Amino acid sequence: MITVYHLENSQSFRILWLLEELEAEYSIEPYLRDKVSSLAPESFKRLHPAGTSPAIADGEVFLPETNAIVDYILDKHPGSPLRPAPDAPEREKYLYWFHAAQGSFMPMLLMSYVLGQMAQRAPLVAKPVLRIAASKTTDLLVTPRLKGLFEVMEADLASRNWLAGDHITAADIVMSYCLTSAEGRLPLLTSFPRVLGLLERMKERPAYQRALDRERLAFA
Amino acid sequence: MITVYHLENSQSFRILWLLEELEAEYSIEPYLRDKVSSLAPESFKRLHPAGTSPAIADGEVFLPETNAIVDYILDKHPGSPLRPAPDAPEREKYLYWFHAAQGSFMPMLLMSYVLGQMAQRAPLVAKPVLRIAASKTTDLLVTPRLKGLFEVMEADLASRNWLAGDHITAADIVMSYCLTSAEGRLPLLTSFPRVLGLLERMKERPAYQRALDRERLAFA
Repeated sequence: MITVYHLENSQSFRILWLLEELEAEYSIEPYLRDKVSSLAPESFKRLHPAGTSPAIADGEVFLPETNAIVDYILDKHPGSPLRPAPDAPEREKYLYWFHAAQGSFMPMLLMSYVLGQMAQRAPLVAKPVLRIAASKTTDLLVTPRLKGLFEVMEADLASRNWLAGDHITAADIVMSYCLTSAEGRLPLLTSFPRVLGLLERMKERPAYQRALDRERLAFA
Repeated sequence: MITVYHLENSQSFRILWLLEELEAEYSIEPYLRDKVSSLAPESFKRLHPAGTSPAIADGEVFLPETNAIVDYILDKHPGSPLRPAPDAPEREKYLYWFHAAQGSFMPMLLMSYVLGQMAQRAPLVAKPVLRIAASKTTDLLVTPRLKGLFEVMEADLASRNWLAGDHITAADIVMSYCLTSAEGRLPLLTSFPRVLGLLERMKERPAYQRALDRERLAFA
């Protein structure tokens, strides 16, 4: 049985959702964030030196890194439609969105978050300079990149309900955190109605709701 | 035959190296970076709205995103030892390092680069504030995260020559860009002799050297 080392408000929710879609058994070890820094607490960092969330344990195996965990879990469920086989027609789109979530969306969302925090946490006298610098970097790099990615996603969703085709895959599950992170923080998301529709379909999945319940219970 | 849309000084070198390891045929479409912004040129962005590098074309397929491309190419070479099978003993470590390259190393290396550029490109009067803010963010987030990741890598390399085991895999190939980006820019790398040894072994591969030659020729 898999143990999920689950940091609150973090990427690891996706692992809970994946396990619920697979109807797998698992337990949750919950960790609250440091109240000052919002980073993972020291107890979480002691699990492994990189300190990244999520991580799982499965017998002797201890594995961090979201997409590594996803592939590891799907290896244990061969033939699951959540990961289209190499010869499946959905494979190419599956690979693109599965990897783009961590390779392209998350770095930009993290950058946007860190730039915001830099200005917010700075001494009063430094705030204006940092706000201008953050806004310039956002305009030059973060916004065009995210806008481009959402344009590709919006176009892809014209012909199907999920990122890789007509059924949900792990590409949708890993992308969900990118969409919920963008929701509310990035006004540009409202220009992409099909992307917002996808986010609604994600949240309506019974397995997504069960994962939310398990998460609430773990922190209760 | 695969066409690689190759941006200079970019992540796409890894795709050339992968194709050389597989002794696959491919052609290169070279793109020079914008001289002012160092970003991809407009002609590259016209290839696809996200504008990320690298991207490949293979017949009707057009695919961006490094790790998606790696998985796509390896799908066409079933049984290649560059991607250990789900039941192989190297699988878990393979998955960890393959995904950690894009999911954990690259976001931190990009953050470090962007913070440096923010200070460097700022007007004179803003530089001191930005240098302090960049240095604080680096000390709080970037350095501890990268140090932790290199500690895990150094420990793993105590028992083997390559990231997943005794032979090279695509995990090494995607990690190579993280190591060459860190080399020279991050003084902390000198504390990890086994990681530096891995980087040397990478560069000594005949396929790596052939990829360098092809790259030079493409820009000649």
